[in-house]
Amino acid sequence: MKKFVNDPKNYVPEMLEGLALANPDTLRYVPDYNLIMRADAPRADKVSIIQGSGSGHEPAHVMAVGPGMLDAACPGDVFAAPPTDYVYETIKLLGTPKGVLLLVNNYTGDRMAFDMAQELAEAEDVNVRTLFIDDDVSVQDSTYTVGRRGVAGNFFVMKAVGAAAERGADLDEIYRIGEKVNSVTRTMGMALTACTPPAKGAPLFDLPADEIEMGVGIHGEPGRRRVKLMPADEIVDELLDAVVTDLPFESGDRVALMVNGLGGTPISELYIVYRRAHNQLADRGITVGRNYVGEYCTSLDMAGASITLVRLDDEIESLLADPAEIAIRVF
Amino acid sequence: MKKFVNDPKNYVPEMLEGLALANPDTLRYVPDYNLIMRADAPRADKVSIIQGSGSGHEPAHVMAVGPGMLDAACPGDVFAAPPTDYVYETIKLLGTPKGVLLLVNNYTGDRMAFDMAQELAEAEDVNVRTLFIDDDVSVQDSTYTVGRRGVAGNFFVMKAVGAAAERGADLDEIYRIGEKVNSVTRTMGMALTACTPPAKGAPLFDLPADEIEMGVGIHGEPGRRRVKLMPADEIVDELLDAVVTDLPFESGDRVALMVNGLGGTPISELYIVYRRAHNQLADRGITVGRNYVGEYCTSLDMAGASITLVRLDDEIESLLADPAEIAIRVF
Repeated sequence: MKKFVNDPKNYVPEMLEGLALANPDTLRYVPDYNLIMRADAPRADKVSIIQGSGSGHEPAHVMAVGPGMLDAACPGDVFAAPPTDYVYETIKLLGTPKGVLLLVNNYTGDRMAFDMAQELAEAEDVNVRTLFIDDDVSVQDSTYTVGRRGVAGNFFVMKAVGAAAERGADLDEIYRIGEKVNSVTRTMGMALTACTPPAKGAPLFDLPADEIEMGVGIHGEPGRRRVKLMPADEIVDELLDAVVTDLPFESGDRVALMVNGLGGTPISELYIVYRRAHNQLADRGITVGRNYVGEYCTSLDMAGASITLVRLDDEIESLLADPAEIAIRVF
Repeated sequence: MKKFVNDPKNYVPEMLEGLALANPDTLRYVPDYNLIMRADAPRADKVSIIQGSGSGHEPAHVMAVGPGMLDAACPGDVFAAPPTDYVYETIKLLGTPKGVLLLVNNYTGDRMAFDMAQELAEAEDVNVRTLFIDDDVSVQDSTYTVGRRGVAGNFFVMKAVGAAAERGADLDEIYRIGEKVNSVTRTMGMALTACTPPAKGAPLFDLPADEIEMGVGIHGEPGRRRVKLMPADEIVDELLDAVVTDLPFESGDRVALMVNGLGGTPISELYIVYRRAHNQLADRGITVGRNYVGEYCTSLDMAGASITLVRLDDEIESLLADPAEIAIRVF
């Protein structure tokens, strides 16, 4: 295993410690609950937004904490749901008079942890709602889900509800917005290579040198099919067709287009993917109103990418355009 | 070769086309000269800043074009210097009454192309100066250089001269600032794996599964030594010691610290590296005033990282703090 890792047990806490050291004025790391939160949270004048999930998907979600996005992220270990009591303590820490919205990608383990934590918090009169995200069109049920999986499209939900919370919206209104964004967001990804979890020390699954996995999950779960390696444009066409026909997106639509790297793919290749996706959408009469090219929701060091489309309307586009300040800086 | 690639000959132009499609209002792609420039350049009221180099190091340098950074980047093919006539045409396109500053990482091929292009442009009365960047402490001479190599530290030079140009400084003053930043910037990198150039279709060099290359160059050139795979903290300590003792950085210094991924390493691991580097600097009495964690100057899909330190003073820190708007967005 060729990684920057010390004891694999400390992979997540050491990463979180590094993140907090790099952002001393804006983020706070609470080791007791494996928690990253805004230094100025909770703020009594707004709903708190919390997302939890397994680790190994960075920048999701610990690096998406900041004004206009999340108030806190409570990650589990690599590819593992956070413990219920950590989620519960996080809700209590972040509770405000306006309430708390929990964002959860649709995986059975995460749902269980967050459902129980919500019940515990409600017993102490914290006003909590939970929104499940399920943007992955690849499969209907999967290794770790009943129903569709939640993947990179969750960034659009986070951004929209984060902006609405910053504007002062109430919990029901924020929930409505999050549900609406999720309902018009579709994603599909594919793997060129498997990922290597630090605790396992070897690739999580076997993917021959001349094969790729179309529709792969972000924990390496099987997708739709294994095929021989193809040119970039053919890969993009297959992903895009699956995404476009699912909602469906139609001629005249205005969309946000995200090309998301899965961890091991350089940004040069992501722009080759972007080029094809943008041009193919133009051919279908679909306009790209906003675009996002980079790493958002990864699968450790997996080489591969996902494509997300969001159907924009004035409300969603306005929320996506609001400022956000998160820990992933550029220069 | 598991990559998003069509015909490898089109790797660079397809990437540049994607970049321009994703930034229609701010960037312009000039296919004739393989050129990415600000849509509003040249601006008569400022010095134009141009950086050229081989491709394969993205986001350097084509994604560093924008207000407060570069006015244009003229990349060559993967790991190859841009042709002299492309550089010459770029200088002419970007020429302003205040002049042009060329930034060149110190590689023999790039120096030749830029020296000749500068001479051609000067014969047509364009006011041009060239600044060479050589921040890599790993080796004194190398496969492709006389003297030290220029690597990720060049982002600090770009940022400082870009800010100074935006403030309206003249060419000599901007050159002075760039030279000063380069003189207090030091970098060393290491490879966990080799990179795979698209045209070759196979790893550029052989690195056994249990070995790493300390001091590797960004084209896979040999570094200081090959050693057995080590825990993350030990790798960081060796890189940091080489960087700190070279200037040297001393107790009481205030620095910018960059942890740069080489293309195949996920950001989770880069924060594990950051944690150790930050703490080790604190132990040495060195304060991190600004930090940068992510991919800046990569080597295609190489797994690995480099560490850069810049000794800050009020002038440099003020220039680094100025706003910059480049094509690498987050949310």
